[in-house]
Amino acid sequence: MKKVILLSTLCLLAACGEKAHETAHNNKAHWSYDGEAGPRNWAALTPEFSPCSGKNQSPINLAGFTEAELPPLEFKYGSGLGKDVENNGHTIQVNYADGNAVKLDSVWFSLKQFHFHAPSENHINGKAFPMEAHLVHKDNTGDLTVVALMFEEGEANPELEKVWAEMPANANTVDPLDSKVDVTALLPENRDYYRFNGSLTTPPCTEGVRWIVMKNPVTASKEQIEKFAHIMHHPNNRPLQATNARPVLQ
Amino acid sequence: MKKVILLSTLCLLAACGEKAHETAHNNKAHWSYDGEAGPRNWAALTPEFSPCSGKNQSPINLAGFTEAELPPLEFKYGSGLGKDVENNGHTIQVNYADGNAVKLDSVWFSLKQFHFHAPSENHINGKAFPMEAHLVHKDNTGDLTVVALMFEEGEANPELEKVWAEMPANANTVDPLDSKVDVTALLPENRDYYRFNGSLTTPPCTEGVRWIVMKNPVTASKEQIEKFAHIMHHPNNRPLQATNARPVLQ
Repeated sequence: MKKVILLSTLCLLAACGEKAHETAHNNKAHWSYDGEAGPRNWAALTPEFSPCSGKNQSPINLAGFTEAELPPLEFKYGSGLGKDVENNGHTIQVNYADGNAVKLDSVWFSLKQFHFHAPSENHINGKAFPMEAHLVHKDNTGDLTVVALMFEEGEANPELEKVWAEMPANANTVDPLDSKVDVTALLPENRDYYRFNGSLTTPPCTEGVRWIVMKNPVTASKEQIEKFAHIMHHPNNRPLQATNARPVLQ
Repeated sequence: MKKVILLSTLCLLAACGEKAHETAHNNKAHWSYDGEAGPRNWAALTPEFSPCSGKNQSPINLAGFTEAELPPLEFKYGSGLGKDVENNGHTIQVNYADGNAVKLDSVWFSLKQFHFHAPSENHINGKAFPMEAHLVHKDNTGDLTVVALMFEEGEANPELEKVWAEMPANANTVDPLDSKVDVTALLPENRDYYRFNGSLTTPPCTEGVRWIVMKNPVTASKEQIEKFAHIMHHPNNRPLQATNARPVLQ
């Protein structure tokens, strides 16, 4: 059973009735990864997107590290279930009910969703990866922690395969997720990480986001990476942003 | 010899001719430390001040420190001269010609000016100080580093005394500075510091500012602190801002 959600993007591609126009009007402004509505112009598309021109934006090239005493990450993953898998035209996203969380700065952040970018958005010491996953967590006050995971080409990834088997081929589609995806199995065994202070990588580019980037990549097969790229039709990585005054901790 | 500069604030207090109105119009929007144009409303006063509602604002309560390997600060102070001392209605400020600099992230930042706030803007572990100095440095690309210095009540401060002896009593006045102020003598002997990523503490509250806060306070006499407060007529400290996703390094 498929729930098809029409967003404003669709209305730009097809003739829309008055009612659909109204819906489009109530949705967020159209943005994309290239052309007039591309990253260079995000901040100017609508006042709501003005943070996109801020001084603390993501992604960045993680480099020039400051050595710091970063405590081991405390994950409580396993009891929450992936509800559905969504193709929103910008990425493939698995939405979660409460039950998976990560602790940071003495606060628990609950996993809300994870999604993918190809090629990677963040770089590490100047190196890009073919794909990156963002595990998006939120605390009770609405603050976000994103755990970022780099994929390099190698062995096929079994947990990824469960998502790939169910991901909708058409944009603006949400399907219930039948498989139980073990988020822990997505993470590398070694949980060493970098930390920096950034933003959402898509409009409205809200700042004040805690970024945790796993030092060690995991693998996906060439076919898995290509399957994602094929369904997206285009690269979905925002260009690197200036680091400015931010220390990158390791 | 005094150069008196009329700013928009003056025009709000007195009848202004057409020409003065024009000048006021060309200057920045009026803001203050209380009332309708006070800190709570800075972001809404003009679109230029919108960063004031950002997620990476200064000042903050420095607490919950992350232990980090912060290299010793490298100061090259001594050859540049304080040009003039200004009462701009918001603070007392000493403006500098090039010749004093601090090195951070392998880049030299040149001292442009220092100025004062009473009581202190930043707090350390919940503690406010009666006065704080901000030494504002800029690099070739326009990025800023502010070195912040806390004053506690104690011995009279001889370098401060040189500035206090020449500071203009009236707002919007710039006087040439006759004394040679040794900026090094303002710093504490022990140069240990905290570091965080913040903003200007006055409109337009531009973010991307590197903040260095000296761990050890210096002293000013009760009379020196009171003299500054008297000339300002009002406290000139912006309230504490949320730390959000920022690590504070020590």
